[in-house]
Parts: sequence; C-alpha cells; structure tokens
Amino acid sequence: MQGTRSLFVPGPTNVPEDVRKAIDVPMEDHRAPDLPAFTLPLFADLKKIFKTDTGRVFLFPASGTGGWEAAITNTLRPGDKVLASRFGQFSHLWIDLCQRHSLNVEIVDVDWGEGVPLDIYAERLKADKDHKIKAVLVTQNETATGVQSDVSGVRTALDDAGHPAMLYVDGVSSIASVDFRMDEWGVDLAVSGSQKGFMLPAGLAIMCASEKALEASKSAGLARCYFDFQDMIQTNDSGYFPYTPPMTLIRGLRCSVDRLLDEGLENVFARHHYLAEGVRKAADAWSLRLCAKEPKWYSDTVSAICLPDGYDSGELLARAYHRYGISLGAGLSKVAGRVFRIGHLGDMNEVMLLSALAGTEMALRDLGVPIVAGSGVAAAQEYYRGAANGYSDLLITRAAAE
Amino acid sequence: MQGTRSLFVPGPTNVPEDVRKAIDVPMEDHRAPDLPAFTLPLFADLKKIFKTDTGRVFLFPASGTGGWEAAITNTLRPGDKVLASRFGQFSHLWIDLCQRHSLNVEIVDVDWGEGVPLDIYAERLKADKDHKIKAVLVTQNETATGVQSDVSGVRTALDDAGHPAMLYVDGVSSIASVDFRMDEWGVDLAVSGSQKGFMLPAGLAIMCASEKALEASKSAGLARCYFDFQDMIQTNDSGYFPYTPPMTLIRGLRCSVDRLLDEGLENVFARHHYLAEGVRKAADAWSLRLCAKEPKWYSDTVSAICLPDGYDSGELLARAYHRYGISLGAGLSKVAGRVFRIGHLGDMNEVMLLSALAGTEMALRDLGVPIVAGSGVAAAQEYYRGAANGYSDLLITRAAAE
Amino acid sequence: MQGTRSLFVPGPTNVPEDVRKAIDVPMEDHRAPDLPAFTLPLFADLKKIFKTDTGRVFLFPASGTGGWEAAITNTLRPGDKVLASRFGQFSHLWIDLCQRHSLNVEIVDVDWGEGVPLDIYAERLKADKDHKIKAVLVTQNETATGVQSDVSGVRTALDDAGHPAMLYVDGVSSIASVDFRMDEWGVDLAVSGSQKGFMLPAGLAIMCASEKALEASKSAGLARCYFDFQDMIQTNDSGYFPYTPPMTLIRGLRCSVDRLLDEGLENVFARHHYLAEGVRKAADAWSLRLCAKEPKWYSDTVSAICLPDGYDSGELLARAYHRYGISLGAGLSKVAGRVFRIGHLGDMNEVMLLSALAGTEMALRDLGVPIVAGSGVAAAQEYYRGAANGYSDLLITRAAAE
Amino acid sequence: MQGTRSLFVPGPTNVPEDVRKAIDVPMEDHRAPDLPAFTLPLFADLKKIFKTDTGRVFLFPASGTGGWEAAITNTLRPGDKVLASRFGQFSHLWIDLCQRHSLNVEIVDVDWGEGVPLDIYAERLKADKDHKIKAVLVTQNETATGVQSDVSGVRTALDDAGHPAMLYVDGVSSIASVDFRMDEWGVDLAVSGSQKGFMLPAGLAIMCASEKALEASKSAGLARCYFDFQDMIQTNDSGYFPYTPPMTLIRGLRCSVDRLLDEGLENVFARHHYLAEGVRKAADAWSLRLCAKEPKWYSDTVSAICLPDGYDSGELLARAYHRYGISLGAGLSKVAGRVFRIGHLGDMNEVMLLSALAGTEMALRDLGVPIVAGSGVAAAQEYYRGAANGYSDLLITRAAAE
Repeated sequence: MQGTRSLFVPGPTNVPEDVRKAIDVPMEDHRAPDLPAFTLPLFADLKKIFKTDTGRVFLFPASGTGGWEAAITNTLRPGDKVLASRFGQFSHLWIDLCQRHSLNVEIVDVDWGEGVPLDIYAERLKADKDHKIKAVLVTQNETATGVQSDVSGVRTALDDAGHPAMLYVDGVSSIASVDFRMDEWGVDLAVSGSQKGFMLPAGLAIMCASEKALEASKSAGLARCYFDFQDMIQTNDSGYFPYTPPMTLIRGLRCSVDRLLDEGLENVFARHHYLAEGVRKAADAWSLRLCAKEPKWYSDTVSAICLPDGYDSGELLARAYHRYGISLGAGLSKVAGRVFRIGHLGDMNEVMLLSALAGTEMALRDLGVPIVAGSGVAAAQEYYRGAANGYSDLLITRAAAE
Repeated sequence: MQGTRSLFVPGPTNVPEDVRKAIDVPMEDHRAPDLPAFTLPLFADLKKIFKTDTGRVFLFPASGTGGWEAAITNTLRPGDKVLASRFGQFSHLWIDLCQRHSLNVEIVDVDWGEGVPLDIYAERLKADKDHKIKAVLVTQNETATGVQSDVSGVRTALDDAGHPAMLYVDGVSSIASVDFRMDEWGVDLAVSGSQKGFMLPAGLAIMCASEKALEASKSAGLARCYFDFQDMIQTNDSGYFPYTPPMTLIRGLRCSVDRLLDEGLENVFARHHYLAEGVRKAADAWSLRLCAKEPKWYSDTVSAICLPDGYDSGELLARAYHRYGISLGAGLSKVAGRVFRIGHLGDMNEVMLLSALAGTEMALRDLGVPIVAGSGVAAAQEYYRGAANGYSDLLITRAAAE
Repeated sequence: MQGTRSLFVPGPTNVPEDVRKAIDVPMEDHRAPDLPAFTLPLFADLKKIFKTDTGRVFLFPASGTGGWEAAITNTLRPGDKVLASRFGQFSHLWIDLCQRHSLNVEIVDVDWGEGVPLDIYAERLKADKDHKIKAVLVTQNETATGVQSDVSGVRTALDDAGHPAMLYVDGVSSIASVDFRMDEWGVDLAVSGSQKGFMLPAGLAIMCASEKALEASKSAGLARCYFDFQDMIQTNDSGYFPYTPPMTLIRGLRCSVDRLLDEGLENVFARHHYLAEGVRKAADAWSLRLCAKEPKWYSDTVSAICLPDGYDSGELLARAYHRYGISLGAGLSKVAGRVFRIGHLGDMNEVMLLSALAGTEMALRDLGVPIVAGSGVAAAQEYYRGAANGYSDLLITRAAAE
Repeated sequence: MQGTRSLFVPGPTNVPEDVRKAIDVPMEDHRAPDLPAFTLPLFADLKKIFKTDTGRVFLFPASGTGGWEAAITNTLRPGDKVLASRFGQFSHLWIDLCQRHSLNVEIVDVDWGEGVPLDIYAERLKADKDHKIKAVLVTQNETATGVQSDVSGVRTALDDAGHPAMLYVDGVSSIASVDFRMDEWGVDLAVSGSQKGFMLPAGLAIMCASEKALEASKSAGLARCYFDFQDMIQTNDSGYFPYTPPMTLIRGLRCSVDRLLDEGLENVFARHHYLAEGVRKAADAWSLRLCAKEPKWYSDTVSAICLPDGYDSGELLARAYHRYGISLGAGLSKVAGRVFRIGHLGDMNEVMLLSALAGTEMALRDLGVPIVAGSGVAAAQEYYRGAANGYSDLLITRAAAE
C-alpha cells in the first residue's frame, strides 16, 4: 500500500525507531566474556519496572502464555487449588492452562465487561479456613474487554482473610503501561510480555517472582524443564542463560527499559491515562458504549467499544484494514462481531491516536453506523488540548522548555 | 518524544520502509564488474518516470539546486538571455542562480499565489523576433506558495511563436507526483530531486535532458566540471560514473522507481490529487484561504494556507512541532509568518493526512484561530470516503479484491 | 572496537543482510485478514527443508530446548521408556529434560567424540521384544564435540528389529545445513531452531512431526499447554497461531527459507562440507586433532579442536575475543578448557572462514601453541582453490557465468 | 552470494553498524526549530578532525570532486596561476578541473609512484618573485598509486620562499585516517569526502577553509552558486543550510565523528599505520613491489601493488570478486592492468585485512602468480602479533583491561 499502515491493536505495539535499531544487531556469542556486564544491570533495571526490591526477574523466550505456564509449573503441585475469575478471553485461557496442568481451579465467572470481583474473592478466601487455595489469579488488564482489575484490592482481601495463598498477576497488557507494584501489593508472580508496554516484538516472556515464589520453586512443582526457574537462576546469577537466549530482543529490551525509565514510570502511566481518556471521549461523542461497564473497570491500555445491534465489527475491521490501512483489534470469543478494540498503549501519542479515530470514523460511516463525521476526533482533540488534565500540562511545560 | 513524530513538510518526504532498506546496504565497489547490470536498467526505467523516449537521465550527487546549476551551465553561454517568471522563493532562487552565472534573465514578476503567466510569456516570445531568448524557465510547482504552472501551455506559447528557445522545467516538487511529459511537452531540461516524489533522502539531483539540450552541451557552455554532462555520458554509457556515486541513494532509487511503476504513474498522480483535495476541503471548512489564488494554480503536492491577520504562522509551526510532534512547512520569504504549508506528496495516504489535519486543528485552536474543532478533519473524511472521486473508487475496488 | 567483530560460534550464526531486513519490520496485527496468505505458503515451503510430504511443521516461540520439550510432552506418557545415547553436552541435556518429565531413559553412554552407536541401538531394539521402548533419541549433530550421527542407520536398526518406537531427532545444529530426510528416514519428530542453519536470531523452535507423532499427540501425552500441538494445529490450519507469534522472526524465516531453496538444499549441504573440510585441513596442518574421533563422526557444521596438554582453551578464546575480535566456541562441560570450536555453518563462505583461521592462528601462537604461522590458512586455501572438490567447481562455473 | 562480500577498495569504506543506524532514520524537517542544537556542535567537532581553531568547515551534498570545485571556485579568479603536481589519476583530475575552470595550471609531472616533489615546489615558489602563483595544490594521498605526500613540507617551501600563495590539500583519502593539521601546516583549503576515513556512504564533500580562504571568497572568485561559501556561511551560522541538506548523511556524520574522537585521532592514525604495515609485509612476502617507490611515499590508507609482467590485474580483480567475493581496487589509467589496490582505511581491523590477504593469495595463485600459499598472511600475522609495534601494545593493554 501507499503510505504507512497504522497499528492500533492492543499488542503487538509500535516499536520505536531506537528500539528497532537496538534489536537489529549482528549476532553475538551468548557466552562471550563481556555479556554479564550487559545482562546483570539489565536485570537490575527490570526490577524497577516491576517496582520490586526483593523479587527476581526472568526472561523466557516465549509468549505471555509461556509466562503463565512458567508461573504455575514452577510453584504449584498437581491438584493444587487455585482461585480465579473469568471475564474475557485471556482470563479464560489462563484458567484453561491451569486445568491442563491438573490444577483444581475454583472459577468465579462474572460478566464480560467487569473485572475481578473483590467481594467474592474476599468471601472465598475467608471461607477457605484450611487454606486449600494455594494461588489467587488476577488478570490485571483483560485485553479482550478493556477491563482493568484492582490488584491491590486482592492483596487487601488476602490480608484481611489472613490467607497465605500466593498472588499471581497476568500483567501482559498492563505492566509498563499502567501502575503495577510488585512489592507494595505483595504480588508473588507477575507475568508480562515483550510486545505490549515494553514496545518490543513478541517473543519474550518477562516475569517477576517474589521470594516466596522462588522458595516454592525449590521444592517440586509441576513437571517442567524449559521454563524452570532454578536453571535460570543458576545461569542468570553469573549473567548467562541455560540455553540460547534471544539476544536481539534482550538488546532491544535494554533500550525499551531505558526509554521507560527516562520518561519516568509515573509519566508513562499518566500518558496512557491521557491517551485512553481521549479515546473514551471519542466513543462518547459517537454514542457508542465501552464493553467495560463502569469507569472503575476502564482500561488505560485498550478500549473495547461496542457496535450498535445490527452492525458487524468484523466488517468494520476489514473496512478499516483494507480501505484505510489501519489495524484495529477484533472482538474475541463471546464478544466477537460485537466489539472492536483500539489499543492505546506503548509508543503512542495523541496525534497517532487521532488518526486511529479519524480512520475508525470513516469506516464506521461507511458501514452506516450513525455517527457524525469528525465528532470523535473533535472530542478527543479538545480533551488533549485541555489544560485541565495533568499530562497535557506536562507536555506544554516540556514544549515551552525546548 | 513518545510515539512517532509526523512529517508533513513538502520535502523531504517520508521514505517507505522498503526504500529505507534498499538504501541501508553495505558499501559496494562502484567499479564492480556487475554494476552496469544494475545501473543501465535503472537509467532506462527513469526515462519512464520522465515520460521520455529520446531524453537522457542524469544523476548528480547534489540537491535540486545543483540540478538547476547543471541544467544551465551545460547548455548556456555567458550573457545568454533567459525568460523566467518569479512568484515564490524557489522561482526566485533559480533566477538568482542564473544571474550569478552571468545569464541575462528577463524576469516576469507576478503575484505570489499565481504561476507562470502564459499570456505574457507568449507575448515576449512573439516579440523576440531575433531569438535572443535562449531558454525559457518554468517552475512547475512553486513549493513556497503551493502553485502549479502549466508547462504544456508554455510549450504551446513557444510553438505558436515559432521560437527555438529551450524549455527548462524545475520539477523538483512535482515530477513523480503530478503529471510531467518530457517528450510530449517538448521539455529540454527537467530537474528533480530525490527527496520529494522519489521518496528518498536528499542528496541526489535527478535530471533529464532532451537531444537538443545534449547537443548544446557538446559545444562550450558555462564553466563547469562537477556537473558536466559529457563526463557523465562517457561513463554512464557503460554503467559507471565519473566520480564516486552515492550508491546507497541510487540503490534506494531502484526501489522507489519500482514503487512508482508498480503503482502506475497515473495512479500516483490521481492519489496526489485525491490527497490534496482533502486538504483543500479542510482549509475550506476552516474558512482559511490558500495562498494559490485560483483553482487552476492549486498544487497537488503542497498546500500553502494563509492565516488570518493577527496570527503568526511561525508560532503555529512551533506549537505543532513542540506540543503535538508534527512538522509542517513554514512560510518563506515574502509570505513568512503569514502562511503555513502542508506537504501531501510522496508516500502518503489519507489517514496520515488526517492526523496532520487533526494536529493542525489543535495547534490552530491553541493559537486562538477561530475554527471549529474537527471541522477540517470531517470535511476531508467525507471527501475521502466519497465514491464521487475516482481514486476512492480505485481504493474500494482494490480493497474488495484483497 | 574498530572494524567488525567476527562470529564463528556454532550458533547463533551470522544473519544475512536480507534476512536482517526481513526481520526488521514494523509490527503487524497477527490476526490481520491477509496473514494466512503469508503463513500458509511458508509452512508448505518449510516442509521442503525437512524433506517431508506427510509431516507437519510447527513454529514455537522458544529455543531448541523448547523444541525438545514440545517433542516429548506431546507424544509420550509419564514413565514411557526412551532409548538415548549420551556423548556430549547437548545429548546430555536432552536426556536430562526427558527425566525431568518423568520419562524412563535407557542411556547408552559412549565416549565424547563418538556418536550414536548403531550396533548397540540395534541390539537394544532387538532385545526389546515387548516394545517397551516408545521413543529412540538421536542427536544428529552434537554441537559440543562436533560429532555427526547416522540418523538413517538408526532407522535401519528400527526396521531390522521390526520395532514400532518413534524416532526423535535433535537437528538443531544440522537441519538446513547438512542432509536431513524426514520421510525417507522415517523420522517422527525433528527439532531445529532458528539460530543455526536457518540463519536467524534465536527465539524460534522449528519442528516437524510425522503423521504417527501427530496421532500420538491426540491422545493424552505429558502435561503441556504452551507447547501443545493440537492448539497449534487448530489455528495454523487457517494460517494463524494460538497466541501472539514472534512475527518478526517468522517474516525473517520466509527470507531464510527462500535463500535455502534458491541456493538449493544439495548445494547448501555441499557448501557446508566444503567449508568444513577446509577447517579440518587447517587443524591437520596445525597438528591438532579433532574431538571427533573418526572421519565418520566429523561434523560439517562445527569442528571441535583439541588443544595439546598444558594449554587452556578458555584462555585461547579470551585472547581471540579481546585481542583479535573473533568469537570462537568454548569447550563445554567434560571438554571445558581442552577444546575450542569453530562454527562453520549458516551464511558462511571460505574467505570468512579464512579470517577465523588466521585469527585463531594468531591467538594460538600468542599462547605458545607450537604451530607455524599461516600454515592452517595455507592448507585451507589450497583446499578451497582446488578443482578436485565439487563445490569449488560449482563456484568456478558460477563465477564464469557472471 | 552466500556469506558476506568483503570490501577492500580504498573507498567507499565499510560503514560501521552504528553509523549505518545513525543514517537510517526517518526523514526530518531541515528547518525544524531544534536542528541548530544538532548542527552547531557537529560543525564545532568537525574542526577537531581538521585540527583547526580558526578554520571553517563546510558540508556540501557532493562527492570529493565537488569539494575540489568548491575550493577553487570560491577563492580564485579566471586565469589565476596554480602550482600543481601530477602523479596519479586523482592529482590528474584535479588539475583537469582547474583547467576547465580557466585556471592557469603550472604542472609538475613526476613519476607515478612518487609524490609532491618538495624541491621543485620550493624552486618554483622562490622563482615566482612577483607572486603570480595564487594557489599551490597538494594531493596528500594519491589513491591511485598509494602515495602519500608531505603537506607540511610544502608549507615549509612556501614559508621559505616568503610566498603568499594559498595551500590547497586534497585529503579525500587521508583526512580522518592519517595525520592532518589544518592550522599547524597553514592549509587554506582542505577537501575530504564522506566515503573514506569518515566511514560514511558517498555523497558529502567535507571541507575546511582558513580565514584567508574565507576572506578570498568574499571578493569575486569564479562563477558559482551551488558551491558558494557565503551562502553556506549565512545559513550555517544559525545552524541551517541554503538548500535541502542530506540530513541522513549528516546524522551519520555525527556518529562517525564521535567514533573518531572516542578512539582518539592519534590512535586512529596509529591503527591505520599498523594495518598498512601488515599489508606491506604481505606484499614483501609475496615478493611483489608497491607502486609507491620508496617508504617515504607509502600510504597508510591504500597499498597499490604491482603484478609481475605478464599478469593482468583486471583478471585478478575479476577472480577475487566473482570466485572469492572480495572487492579489491583496480589499477587506474596509466597503471591499469598492472596494479591492484588494497584499501586499508576506515572501519578496519587486522582480522578483516587478513581475510583480504587470504583471498588475494588464492586469486593470485589461481592466476599463476608465483607466490607461496599463506606466506603473505603469515607475514602480516606475525607483524600484527608483535609487541614491537606500539599499536599492538595498545590493543593488548586494552584487551587486558576488559
């Protein structure tokens, strides 16, 4: 096609030029004598992203799904009871993975559009007097529905119940984009992936384990070898890896971690909120509702937007892709055909998002969805311009300083 | 900055990914035995871009200014009379260059916002009974004002007057973007550059000379060596160059020529018209007038838009650049401060341009220019969606075929 | 450092320029409507690399170790008996992985420097009257010792014994470099990785399963989810993947498969033999013996060379790396300190290898190893020049045609 | 071809990875408000490369030939007398260029293989009592013959004669590789190019003018516009350019200047001498003589090596290129067919050069030139290993520190 195809799926996200260049390097010997001088500081800086002092970061050549598997196989035993909530395609798949690894999952189904039900979790944990539940699962950001859950609230529920279960968080589409606090929230296993907030191609599961989780991984968990924590620890300690690491992605990771720390994590989070708000203003102007039922569930990394009855989101996506060259996210599983998604995470700014909104508007109107041309764009523009939001102020200050 | 900075100046234009990759190659020996197998077909294909069978293409490591100099120094003698029209910064500079090379330029000044005055040219040519005028200069697209001139009309004027003067065209910001016909229009010297319609970085003057111009270059012209046609011809004939050629750009040129021919030149022109029309609809919706005074002068590669009195376009550009990360074109010389420019040439599509319009709207509103948020975007969107324009139909057909 | 650092480890191998560019692409939607038009032909062409009509190729975001795990967890049950031979670090690790997944491995230890003992395998298979052995493991190329084993001979042993066990081949450092014939040799599971003969960065396990293996994967194997064949099949059938695929590597794979098929697999194999022979001539000239005990074990992808007593290969590698900027392979485990390795696989030619030999010679002499300067280089040069070897003839013919 | 094609011509030289990446950037607005923050420090650092405090650096989108033209057209008048020596293709071409621009060149022809004849220059300058000679030309490194001349000696000759002529130096294949001292040697115009010691693609003439030369450029020189110093000065002073600059090369230049300054200019020069010495040892071992007649003429950036009678260097180059994938430099003009050249400048190290020598040896032997296989390689190896040379010591110290 002529001109750039624009990507607004909730991962993979756009890889910044400097990260692309950091990845595109000649091959190197992963046993070179000077490799540890590169890897050890990287592991140290990754801990800052997870906001942990005591945890340990792991890098597996895998997708986020591999990260889920690593989390449970290293720390749980066959038949262990796990508390989990299901409200979207990804929370569903993690539960499925647990079951295939012979865990006993206590599933709390809630409507797609809601997130982890803190009250039910609290209740179940209190009821579990003899601590059969070994792990509590939280999908911090359900990518399929654009729903964010309250991880810290789950920690409170565990603490209130005096429950020793470990806390596992799927942060694939949230960590490095929205706030996450490994230590403060007492998270035991956090799973992320390279292709979202870390602004890298897919291929790297980026995980963090608490001391408690590491302790659990020493005694027998589920069968595993590729994803074994102890093998990793043995070699990572000296700056190496137990098998050939994907060095190009790891070189890129150095650059993306630098970007995140240079921008400042709190600024990264503020930017994601700011960008997301603009998209939500646009949806509002279009009179289309989000899949997320209430503001408290709104995701700052992806908005799932519902089409009115009678319109097919698959058709919308095809139109946007083929006619206007923009990639939007599809509705998955239960919400297939009814929902389309705009990813607003990673290396993104307001002008890029406005082109997503402008392209989406054209496709919506081509389908006959009754929206006013330019209305969503205008709503977002006015929000982005506004001095009322803190992030805009920051940008104005920065611009003035240049 | 976070996210991509967007470029909407009228050159350099965005370089497509595949062209960037074609440029980014290891160095090579420019005297390698297999180089001619690469260069000779490239020269042949470049003739298609100029629409010439009989002309000859030259590639100089230079900017477009170097192309202007090559054109005149190879073919004219000190004191030769040249007819030229001045209506913008670039037509002005070409005249200045002629004067510095001791040509006698008969200047026709017209208002900035108009183009080559065919009637005056016709008159002057008819009046020049003893053919003192050796060359007639036409700036096909005045980049400073967004004005397109009628090259074919100048040919008619020459023919009607039975005048033997050579026809020189500055096509730097038009060739490979809007229609240009070397042979049919009887152009003797056409000058273009790599950084506009050819979608390459700056650094290559791309020229074409007619047989008549080549003949003129054999007898003494002005002093020259670096830009000498005959040195080029001697080595180009066998596929080489008289001095180290910028092979990375020339490798990239192969790719950009392939892109142009694959898209089809007529489609390239239609796309540029379609993109330009959208921008003009936006300007109209903003109630801002173009620098180009009448539709017949409208440029399909760049729109120069006038701000209302009391607003400074320099301030607008600074705002757009620092706060929203988009590069717009400045007003130059006579129109500095009053005009801003949106380049819509090269590897561009409607969604990219909508982001330019959206960003411009925010900056305009930040400055207090009384425009309605989203209005320009909406006007362009509706135009782009419309089946009324031929290019949109083509895109729809192509999308349906995928 | 100044100038290029040269890489001669047996993986990762040098990534050709065009493959690097194929990898370095903007992110894309892995659910895009036109993705299958890319992935399905790629899967088809990958079958040619494995020389299979009936097998099925899998691509997992993983290292080769992940491929080992995928192979056994999809097709075997806890406690299943597996016949395997151990003669180097990588055959050792595969056995270890099997044991951790609760397989019952019948280990045949042979000296490091030898390969799979066909006679013992034959004997054991014949003795296993009630077919307790479910799988026979073969490390086609033991990367640690530079030993190649005879996969086809193992097939013969199985057939001679009328034994139904499945045949598993670790072809990580052999497939796409030396001959491998999935169908003809009756291989059931072949494991390779991106970073060797496929000339890509690490991060992709490239596998092939026979119909028999696929059948076995339908009934319960070992616990697995990330590496599940059936999930892959369900989505791969329509050109997609069960989770975010590492599209950049897969785009690169398209390019590397094209390179392999364009060169012609038999030419690829001939080139690797030719390159390896030169290195062996050099070792001979240095009077250093290979770790591989006999010519029948010689690997065409990596040569492990023994240092005389009293010299430390670690020191040699450090010297080569820090002083001369070349990366050689270390001796691993049992042969640590005594062996160094030269990888001669992937995108390699004779002049590159001569620089490895020249650099190695300097480092050897710096350590005081009694070799004659230039002797190894000269021996390799004379071999490479020789018309006696078929590959050189091919190169001469090709050069003449240019 | 398979594996890397290696480049050993005396320019273009190999572009380091980081410089390639610095070049391969998205297009940018060359009138952006923050451009001067980039360009002004770059101009300042370029002065360090020329070793000047008082001179001024110019960057023209051109080859070195353009730099020659800029040097003379800005500072000389028609008919001005120029003293120049001719001893190779490039000194010849510069003289030719002067003549075409109507200068009166007093040519001192010496044998190809020698350099600027200091005694003759001294004599001519002394004889020129009324200072008709306005400029003295020195080709510091004659790339065609691998001959280095003594610029400082010419300054002495000028001073001894009390002659006010300006000193012009062609440093295209020497500056940034071997010592050059603008101020100390009183050079008035120095011309270099991007594609040699600056390790960039061709396309940028990099020049430096003394205050005296700048003063001369204010009063009328030869006709010029594209190469006009004053236009450059007016815009460069504020960090901009008079026409579209080749920003990609200029971005790359920032990186290459950083590399040069980080390595340290004296180390750069030492490295070039060290690399060159190895090649000369090899030529010696082959019993082939250099085109440069005496050690005082030896170039540290390129060695032109003579073949024995009866052998054709064109055939040698074709063999090296087609059969072994290495690019060597051809013999040009007077020495065509008799000489081949090995470029050893830019981003080069000893292992890379050893591959050039190894490949050359094979091609020489294929042609039947009576040399011993490995002999040149061995001679160079032993030199490079030797603690006797200072550069090797530096490398050993650096390696020990890692």
